[in-house]
Amino acid sequence: MKINSGIKVFAPATVANLACGFDTLGLALEQPGDELIAKVSATPGIRIIKITGGKKLPYDIDKNTAGVAAKKLLEAVGNKEIGIEMEIHKKMPFGSGLGSSAASAVAGAMAVNELLRRPFTKWELLPFAMAGEQIASGAYHADNVAPSLLGGITFVRNNESLDVHRLSVPPGLFVTVIYPQVEILTKAARNMLSNTVSLKNTVQQAANLGGFIIGLQKGDFELISRSLEDVIIEPQRASLIPHFQEVKEAALKQGVLGCSISGSGPSIFALSNNSLIAENAGTEMERIYRDNKIKTALFISKINMEGVIRY
Amino acid sequence: MKINSGIKVFAPATVANLACGFDTLGLALEQPGDELIAKVSATPGIRIIKITGGKKLPYDIDKNTAGVAAKKLLEAVGNKEIGIEMEIHKKMPFGSGLGSSAASAVAGAMAVNELLRRPFTKWELLPFAMAGEQIASGAYHADNVAPSLLGGITFVRNNESLDVHRLSVPPGLFVTVIYPQVEILTKAARNMLSNTVSLKNTVQQAANLGGFIIGLQKGDFELISRSLEDVIIEPQRASLIPHFQEVKEAALKQGVLGCSISGSGPSIFALSNNSLIAENAGTEMERIYRDNKIKTALFISKINMEGVIRY
Repeated sequence: MKINSGIKVFAPATVANLACGFDTLGLALEQPGDELIAKVSATPGIRIIKITGGKKLPYDIDKNTAGVAAKKLLEAVGNKEIGIEMEIHKKMPFGSGLGSSAASAVAGAMAVNELLRRPFTKWELLPFAMAGEQIASGAYHADNVAPSLLGGITFVRNNESLDVHRLSVPPGLFVTVIYPQVEILTKAARNMLSNTVSLKNTVQQAANLGGFIIGLQKGDFELISRSLEDVIIEPQRASLIPHFQEVKEAALKQGVLGCSISGSGPSIFALSNNSLIAENAGTEMERIYRDNKIKTALFISKINMEGVIRY
Repeated sequence: MKINSGIKVFAPATVANLACGFDTLGLALEQPGDELIAKVSATPGIRIIKITGGKKLPYDIDKNTAGVAAKKLLEAVGNKEIGIEMEIHKKMPFGSGLGSSAASAVAGAMAVNELLRRPFTKWELLPFAMAGEQIASGAYHADNVAPSLLGGITFVRNNESLDVHRLSVPPGLFVTVIYPQVEILTKAARNMLSNTVSLKNTVQQAANLGGFIIGLQKGDFELISRSLEDVIIEPQRASLIPHFQEVKEAALKQGVLGCSISGSGPSIFALSNNSLIAENAGTEMERIYRDNKIKTALFISKINMEGVIRY
């Protein structure tokens, strides 16, 4: 088997849920993301030799999302002889609601696939990356993994069967993401959710999801804007994020199409169809946290249509 | 104002909900439907002079869905002098879950608009037809009115603002509808529904709606089939319809893409991508009711892409 001696990949951060698509929608950012370097070594097996930017992450490959994804892929090709050393350079905040564990899992699967000269297509990497993500989040969810792998805006109809679709995306969409540096654990954010939803809100949320998909398809930004409304999750989780309402209102005032929680937070995202609006919204969102002495990181990006890349 | 002296319109029956789109999705059938004849008379005002096929329907124009729709349209153009006589020929069963009241309302609005030589576009007739529908159903819902008016498969994001969209429809879809002649009142079927839904089912139902819209857009019949699943309403209402499960299984066995309740029932619809399957499913569905001595009406049709027509 011919292999590459060393490669470097970049897996992007992602925004899941997108207001109207809890557990179904996600999109990829151009920045930030995870960089992963993989090199062939003489000693069989996968080893993580370096992690930067993520102090708490395990070197044990059975506990590390990138390690699990890489290992599952190697098992699938039946290659037991190869030795691989991985360096993970986390260039994005952990626990920020931007799909950090998904990005690492995607990077791990992509890196090993590239080292082996692509036994699998990108789509076929999905179950390996999902196995990695599951180690971190405890759940088999594709809402961050799919966009980090495939790019664009993705839709998950069913996680178990990996019924995943890439939506058509009109040109000119921008994403503003602000990460206020307060920690929220995905599991805690998930556990705080009520197990029941009113029938009225069930219908309205589904209607918004449908409207969003149709709006993307038609390039109807007004429909996208009307559909970027979360009547179920945001009202329950907003209180976890300091100054959420104020930040959201500031973004909407700048003319963004919509603004809500990224994943389970604390990051907040806004979608715009104009880079100036995306930047102005970012400036205003940042200002509110600065006035309240909360550190932030701000990311303004087009939608990343590539997903994970080797570079 | 120039006017036509007499015209005839046909407004089709419709299937609402479509398994995964409670209160949002609907489609138009080629048959059955309502025929409405409108003629100018010398005496100002609207009068219903004849109703066939619907014994219980009121002649009072303020209580008749076609009358209310017609009257609202006349009010909007400010024409107080014109006299209109209407004949309503109901050629579809009432209380069958096939949008009977919506078809009459649409026919009323269309007929008067045609008599007046189209002061409004078809899209602009929506609020008038909605006003008619509201008299009958007590609710301001566009899920039957929109497809009867516009044809095709329609999606309602919001009823109050009439945020209504026509979905792209792949060629080759067929609808089988069987109406077992037992009466179910829409209000009763609505009142039996639980006011709450589990979060899990909320997510799955929305995911199915999204999958259905994407499947239509891509012409992906397998995705359409996987998405034609109702985890919320059908399990609650199925017991109202005699032999529902048996009929559904018979249809699925013939290879239909999906099968569920039409509107609030008792009619049952199945979607197919092949006319032979649509016909075979109809035969099997019919057989079950015949064996159980329940009268039925069977309708097999392409999706009606025109909606209401003057002919």
